[in-house]
Amino acid sequence: MSFDLGGYLAERRRLVDQALARFLPPEDAYPPTIHEAMRYSVFAGGKRLRPILVIAGAEAGGGLAQDVLPAACAMELIHTYSLIHDDLPAMDDDDDRRGRPTSHKVFGEAMAILAGDALLTLAFRLLAENFAESQRQAVAPARLRQILAEIAEAAGTFGMIGGQVVDIQSEGKSVSAETLEYIHTHKTAALIRVSLRSGAILTGAPEKVLEAISQAGAHLGLAFQIVDDILDVEGSLEQLGKTAGSDRRKKKVTYPEHFGLEVSRSRAKSLVEEAKSALAPLGSAATPIMALADFILERKS
Amino acid sequence: MSFDLGGYLAERRRLVDQALARFLPPEDAYPPTIHEAMRYSVFAGGKRLRPILVIAGAEAGGGLAQDVLPAACAMELIHTYSLIHDDLPAMDDDDDRRGRPTSHKVFGEAMAILAGDALLTLAFRLLAENFAESQRQAVAPARLRQILAEIAEAAGTFGMIGGQVVDIQSEGKSVSAETLEYIHTHKTAALIRVSLRSGAILTGAPEKVLEAISQAGAHLGLAFQIVDDILDVEGSLEQLGKTAGSDRRKKKVTYPEHFGLEVSRSRAKSLVEEAKSALAPLGSAATPIMALADFILERKS
Repeated sequence: MSFDLGGYLAERRRLVDQALARFLPPEDAYPPTIHEAMRYSVFAGGKRLRPILVIAGAEAGGGLAQDVLPAACAMELIHTYSLIHDDLPAMDDDDDRRGRPTSHKVFGEAMAILAGDALLTLAFRLLAENFAESQRQAVAPARLRQILAEIAEAAGTFGMIGGQVVDIQSEGKSVSAETLEYIHTHKTAALIRVSLRSGAILTGAPEKVLEAISQAGAHLGLAFQIVDDILDVEGSLEQLGKTAGSDRRKKKVTYPEHFGLEVSRSRAKSLVEEAKSALAPLGSAATPIMALADFILERKS
Repeated sequence: MSFDLGGYLAERRRLVDQALARFLPPEDAYPPTIHEAMRYSVFAGGKRLRPILVIAGAEAGGGLAQDVLPAACAMELIHTYSLIHDDLPAMDDDDDRRGRPTSHKVFGEAMAILAGDALLTLAFRLLAENFAESQRQAVAPARLRQILAEIAEAAGTFGMIGGQVVDIQSEGKSVSAETLEYIHTHKTAALIRVSLRSGAILTGAPEKVLEAISQAGAHLGLAFQIVDDILDVEGSLEQLGKTAGSDRRKKKVTYPEHFGLEVSRSRAKSLVEEAKSALAPLGSAATPIMALADFILERKS
């Protein structure tokens, strides 16, 4: 049976976008500037990969997208806050993202810092509200505690922030393969893994399912970042060398630079295969995650 | 019966400091720089007012400090993150705080931004962990949801961040009394009010107690900020006008500037009286909060 990945993604993206529009304060809510800034970055054309992974995790655990929309949106808000802060002049100093001026170019640095802070804060509020909305309140609170602790860990100094710290401190330096792996698994993979896990935990998936999903999530997260690095290099090659890739300009340590393009492609491919092997015992419940694994490997942007 | 406020504060400050030392990752945990930066700002000699208010709220609800230490520490982490980000060059551009160089002067802007992000993230992790540690797990999860939602609201764009946004946008402008009140109640009072409430909610205080504490918290929060403004002006007067107050240098809108010192002092005093009236029906359970009210009014730093 073939799985319509395009249709699956489009439908879930629509659900996530509707929920984000509902959960984010309106642009004219006082004080308006901060709410404009939050919406500007959240509605900048993202793939919504993390929220869709939350939903796919929920589906693998026998739940529905509707049960986990606030948690799914929380992951997108955490991702968006990290992009706004990463783009700041003191960090990666990026003027553009996805073809639009970055938050601090539009709203100024102070407002960009505060918009990031506000999105992170709102993310945790949504996690609490997931349970006010859920129809499964009787069992929900203990799960809230678990995903809250896991998401805060994955987003913190032993996860995403830790990866960003080492990434910044490694710029322009020659780093070991271990350091490169640390950056990738922490900066990107931790949040992707916990997205899948959160959806599964919220819908009460049994331990066996959770373990399979966690393994798959870690592999997919690392594959996602390696593909990101590859796309950055290929993008610059397509432009006939006129501009080097943005990672290279910023002297970021990347997988292709360390191991070459061929080894990087093969590593991404084998990580996706490992993820699929981990998911195989779950049968058709894991079909969406399997399809997302292919999407992560084959995406062109 | 006289209440030994000095002893009360010293004992609770010691409990909070011990708990903070335990909850914050060690300085040498990888990656060390971010953990050094987090500890540098948290252990910079704060009064620990917010965590002590959480404890006092718990005591008013019939609980113990030990039941709420993670939540108490979470409030201090949120407060500290807000100071680190407020001090950044793009915001208030402060080089010193409490006589020590600010985070970005010591660790650089990128690390200061990330240290603030990390403290906010860890705060929400501690809130989740409050319940792993608490001996009252059976009733705790529903309260977790409530304080999580309330703290995220008080720290977000309808609370502290909203106040900071309007404060920044009002610099150097003449603002109305309403705007000044908005800034003070949101930037400072919201977090102080929710600190008291969180302690009371966590220990299962009945609605009557919660209402009294919420009223008192709102009054005390506003009084605290007015006293802050007054101390800033008086500090500059003591220096015989050689340096103007830092608020004035930064063209911040303040209570004394808008209403004069005398009206400001009298407003702070009557707010503290109102707080005490709200607390009166609670009897001796509210004695610590009453004493903290006097402390807020009479403090010299």
